[in-house]
Amino acid sequence: MQRILSTQLGAHVHETVTIAGWIHRTRMLKSVAFLIVRDAEGLSQVVVEEPETRARLEALGEESVIEVVATVTPNEQAPGGIELTSPVIRVLSRVDVRLPLELHRPTLSASLPTQLDHAALALRHPARRRALRVAAAATAGFRAALTEQRFVEIHTPKIVGSSTESGADVFEVDYFGRPGYLAQSPQFYKQLMVGVFERVFEVGPVFRAEPSDTARHLAQYTSLDAEMGFVTDHRDVMAALTGTLSVMMATIADRTGAATPKVPAEIPAVPFAEALRIVGAPAGEGDMTPAYERALGEWARREHDSEFVYVTGYPMRKRPFYTHPDPADPAYSNGFDLLFRGLEIVTGGQRLHRYEDYVAALTAAGESLEPYAGYLEGFRLGMPPHGGWAIGLERLVARLLGVANVREVTAFPRDLHRIAP
Amino acid sequence: MQRILSTQLGAHVHETVTIAGWIHRTRMLKSVAFLIVRDAEGLSQVVVEEPETRARLEALGEESVIEVVATVTPNEQAPGGIELTSPVIRVLSRVDVRLPLELHRPTLSASLPTQLDHAALALRHPARRRALRVAAAATAGFRAALTEQRFVEIHTPKIVGSSTESGADVFEVDYFGRPGYLAQSPQFYKQLMVGVFERVFEVGPVFRAEPSDTARHLAQYTSLDAEMGFVTDHRDVMAALTGTLSVMMATIADRTGAATPKVPAEIPAVPFAEALRIVGAPAGEGDMTPAYERALGEWARREHDSEFVYVTGYPMRKRPFYTHPDPADPAYSNGFDLLFRGLEIVTGGQRLHRYEDYVAALTAAGESLEPYAGYLEGFRLGMPPHGGWAIGLERLVARLLGVANVREVTAFPRDLHRIAP
Repeated sequence: MQRILSTQLGAHVHETVTIAGWIHRTRMLKSVAFLIVRDAEGLSQVVVEEPETRARLEALGEESVIEVVATVTPNEQAPGGIELTSPVIRVLSRVDVRLPLELHRPTLSASLPTQLDHAALALRHPARRRALRVAAAATAGFRAALTEQRFVEIHTPKIVGSSTESGADVFEVDYFGRPGYLAQSPQFYKQLMVGVFERVFEVGPVFRAEPSDTARHLAQYTSLDAEMGFVTDHRDVMAALTGTLSVMMATIADRTGAATPKVPAEIPAVPFAEALRIVGAPAGEGDMTPAYERALGEWARREHDSEFVYVTGYPMRKRPFYTHPDPADPAYSNGFDLLFRGLEIVTGGQRLHRYEDYVAALTAAGESLEPYAGYLEGFRLGMPPHGGWAIGLERLVARLLGVANVREVTAFPRDLHRIAP
Repeated sequence: MQRILSTQLGAHVHETVTIAGWIHRTRMLKSVAFLIVRDAEGLSQVVVEEPETRARLEALGEESVIEVVATVTPNEQAPGGIELTSPVIRVLSRVDVRLPLELHRPTLSASLPTQLDHAALALRHPARRRALRVAAAATAGFRAALTEQRFVEIHTPKIVGSSTESGADVFEVDYFGRPGYLAQSPQFYKQLMVGVFERVFEVGPVFRAEPSDTARHLAQYTSLDAEMGFVTDHRDVMAALTGTLSVMMATIADRTGAATPKVPAEIPAVPFAEALRIVGAPAGEGDMTPAYERALGEWARREHDSEFVYVTGYPMRKRPFYTHPDPADPAYSNGFDLLFRGLEIVTGGQRLHRYEDYVAALTAAGESLEPYAGYLEGFRLGMPPHGGWAIGLERLVARLLGVANVREVTAFPRDLHRIAP
């Protein structure tokens, strides 16, 4: 008999069906036992009256995997109005140890380190599952939106020959006896691929040897990268990003039922200097601190009824060398950040596209051109004006679900202290 | 004026339009010059008669990026029956160096090393672009097929704490001063996630410190991984894979127009011993060599009119420790490979799911359990019978397009000798 899911029981009332899943909880009452079986989609209540079955059940630990053949019976008292009666239980995997944390309460009471130590179990909790489903939906929406706008998906190297992009915070790899480095982003490659497809995207891991142990940093995270050619300036990039976010939020709502914020057709965009003014920072301040970001998020909600706000025109000295300056004031950039509920979740901007501008920028930074040879060749051989962005998936999901620590929405996080499981 | 694409010209006959792209080729005849502009979708022919424009064009190297405002004019002699006349040209990026390889011939005549050294340019060639579009379509089809079958997308760690999966051929990373290793596959993690979502998939990079320099190995490749719970045995896994391949091929055909092979509703499946017999190998042979695989591919085409063939029941000693044995003959496994045109492009099978079986398998292999602690906990805490597969994306695409070397279908390949660009 074909197994059905917990969510399909309603279509089989009075029939004998097979379900399968994990023993989520067992409640032994005097004359009856209630067995809650969890599958990928939800829970089923099984009523056990027969003494021999009850005895077998008593010997099975929570999280044992079982198959149950039983009758689907309406019962107004049961959760969802349905329960399974007269069960025949077959054990697929027996658990005979005490669980290191409890799964059947609405929230996981175990500490975050305990959850992460026992990720294989903790991730089975509905709250943790839900976060990963939201991440999967966000990613699907990202790809759908960009494919629709004729972006082409690419896969780029995660091991690179020089630690050029930022120098610091990079993991070194023994690459066949030579030094290699884990890519901190697909930045250089996605730009080169603008020369091939005009518009590209990549969903993949990026690596930061981040020495700080905060609630918003991971040593590996999932970056949703896009890059597009033939733009006028960063505003074209912001418009494409806004549209993409809108599809992502709709996909999350549609697939998971999570409450998602409205994405305004035009997200408020505040120039850097004005953002400082709004949050009461000194005019000479060089960057937005997390506290300023939170204050600006509050302002955007209050003044524009928007959970999102762009900060544009960051000072050039705060942005990487490939950033395109603002033609009207070259001390400032055509770079932007997107804040979501006061947290930076996207960095983007227009990039330099002329070879001579790259040579000038690198020379001004005191850099040798040689490590950048393969990158610079792409510009020497013709690149249109272009720009792009990178969304930090875990930050987006954490902010969406109101979760304080990105580790809570990551399956097996990596950080300064954690490399297992 | 909004820029249009080369493929949209037919809808704008006799109108003045803006196109943009790269100078693919310039042909200077006596009284007229033909300028071929390449964009992401194709080529446009621009006719230049005006002497000043011609003079400007002569000074622009191939691959310069330009914007052209011109009139769309029907001309039966022109490629596609349309050309652009009376152009006004604006230069976006000027190229003034000789190209290291020629892009405008039907096939790239440069050697593969030259192509790879100048990837930013070589990838712009239509044949190279096409391969990457096929890869993107294959990946999209993979995700669509699995999402439809309620698989959930996951992202797993690429840095792991022990080199447990195979020991050899692993890249070591300096992980905050401790040794870490690049993941050779998401195998352990996707199995653990069966405990969470029952069915999961991941598209991501995997890393092999492959010391051999062959046409079918890369140090980083894209693995299309899936894993599913509540299976009877490996045949359920093969059925899901066959259905997925069918959607992948349809998506490739639909998106790229590439000729794709028919995927039989049931792909022929040959037990290992029979496969040896078919290809005339000695009965004691322990594995399928590439030559045997090619011969079996020929046989499948000849006898079953199928480009695909499964080999099932490999000897246990040739498969990793987590492989489920064949209950009828435990020297053989419930593992399989899928050959496409005589090349192994997928490895899969049923896995062990009981904790005690893992302990026995690792102990028999002389392994300590400790490095596997986070992995084993998932089985100790309840895992259903499950199995899965991993498709090598580059191999699939190379075989589909009849390309001899996987490097030709990889944007920026990594191998024993190459870490740049």
